[in-house]
Amino acid sequence: MKPSPGFTGATLDRADALRANDAALAAAKADPRARLLVLSGLEPLPGADGRLAWKPLAGADPASDLLLLGLDDGVPCFAELKYAEADTVNRSMAVMQVLARLPAEDAALYGGARSVIDWHYRHLFCARCGAGTALFRAGWGRKCAQCNSEHFPRVDPVVIMLAEFEGRVLLGRQPMFPPRFFSALAGFVEPGESIEEAVRRELFEEAGVRAGEVRYVVSQPWPFPSSLMIGCVAEVDGDALTLDATELQDAMWVDRAEVEAALGAHADARFVPPPPVALAHTLLRAWLGR
Amino acid sequence: MKPSPGFTGATLDRADALRANDAALAAAKADPRARLLVLSGLEPLPGADGRLAWKPLAGADPASDLLLLGLDDGVPCFAELKYAEADTVNRSMAVMQVLARLPAEDAALYGGARSVIDWHYRHLFCARCGAGTALFRAGWGRKCAQCNSEHFPRVDPVVIMLAEFEGRVLLGRQPMFPPRFFSALAGFVEPGESIEEAVRRELFEEAGVRAGEVRYVVSQPWPFPSSLMIGCVAEVDGDALTLDATELQDAMWVDRAEVEAALGAHADARFVPPPPVALAHTLLRAWLGR
Repeated sequence: MKPSPGFTGATLDRADALRANDAALAAAKADPRARLLVLSGLEPLPGADGRLAWKPLAGADPASDLLLLGLDDGVPCFAELKYAEADTVNRSMAVMQVLARLPAEDAALYGGARSVIDWHYRHLFCARCGAGTALFRAGWGRKCAQCNSEHFPRVDPVVIMLAEFEGRVLLGRQPMFPPRFFSALAGFVEPGESIEEAVRRELFEEAGVRAGEVRYVVSQPWPFPSSLMIGCVAEVDGDALTLDATELQDAMWVDRAEVEAALGAHADARFVPPPPVALAHTLLRAWLGR
Repeated sequence: MKPSPGFTGATLDRADALRANDAALAAAKADPRARLLVLSGLEPLPGADGRLAWKPLAGADPASDLLLLGLDDGVPCFAELKYAEADTVNRSMAVMQVLARLPAEDAALYGGARSVIDWHYRHLFCARCGAGTALFRAGWGRKCAQCNSEHFPRVDPVVIMLAEFEGRVLLGRQPMFPPRFFSALAGFVEPGESIEEAVRRELFEEAGVRAGEVRYVVSQPWPFPSSLMIGCVAEVDGDALTLDATELQDAMWVDRAEVEAALGAHADARFVPPPPVALAHTLLRAWLGR
């Protein structure tokens, strides 16, 4: 079975060719069918049908900049950038409860939109010279009015991995996790590293295990604020652990039966697993299915 | 055979635990063995032995900030940040000729250092409020003196892929490429996309081909300025091409014999392939080896 990672499966055409075409973009904005994603701050406000809600683009606040999300069956779809909210907008993870009820394709569309909107809110100034920047490329970049530097939305690659040893995999918990919750270890890919090198470094830093073969499994975006989660399984040469106490409160090796019980939410499961929207969940399912 | 991608294989311990430990960092700087990477602007100046050159850390310009590269067999290794050079430093690709003569582990160490140094040079101001920022975490971040925002070096994930159809793969050339040079298609992963979704979008945008199964193959960093190249092969459902003329000047399907002739630099090869330091080269070799 194909894995179905969280925040994937958006059906919108991103319409890259429109972004730098001023005439086509103006026509898209003037299209009477054009619509605007309904948000409260950075959060979706689903309609009565449980889907993302939209309103006519004509209802946009004239003070807002517009981000072109793409075309839905030819209909131009936008989101508003309300800069006045940039510093005060709610970034709490409570939004996950709303997202869990959205269809996968809506959660995926929302995730991409949220990442770009929040990138604007945190990048109103030029990192190169400090002057103010203005939106360009239909919201897929900002340009400095003073030094002309162009800035583009960030995507931060993160490796998330299961160390594997003799039929068991390694899970860990951070101090802030809910009780009994364990997940895969993870960390940002740094400049100068391949995916495989980042996996080996993180496993050694956080748990003291040495990885050999690293196998890529699956990926997904994570819009808090804008990560690309890259899921791997890494064979390690032993199960002795040396935990980095600043990163991990605890870690443990789990076998197939324990992972099955946790994913099946059995009452006597050894741990609470990550939810389906998290790549660690998909990674555990893929490991069981192999 | 294992692929050996460009800019991988650095042997330095990145010593993450030192970065936020002021006392340990001060001790590393005071270590009489501590050394400084010799650079001219952003370019390496290899020594008579053909390796990266180092000098005693005591020789650093007092006006420079120091970036902790890591530990080489316990010896602290640093690079200088010379902010006065930030705007004028040479960023030409002529450096590739120097890099081609460095041992792989030195090119990898240099690549990571260059990405972080150049990130500092382009991020002296806070994108959130426009105020000046100062180095923290031993050079692995900058912090705003005014709003306290923390900023970390960017790594931009890029998918680079071979579309495959009936035993042939698709290569393309951009207008700026040298004569007869063809490479794999590539593009930045956008917010809200998985690796697989980015591969499918780019292939359709640039060449008009529809991909189904996407297979991850290999990755490497690319320090111009700081990409993570993610190499994939994608099965497509036909070989009819519709090229995006703004991205590609030409594209063609090549078979195994043609790829072998090109990688072997045969006089009658149909095209000039990317050099070994580029992931497209490793991807083509891996495709042949499969």
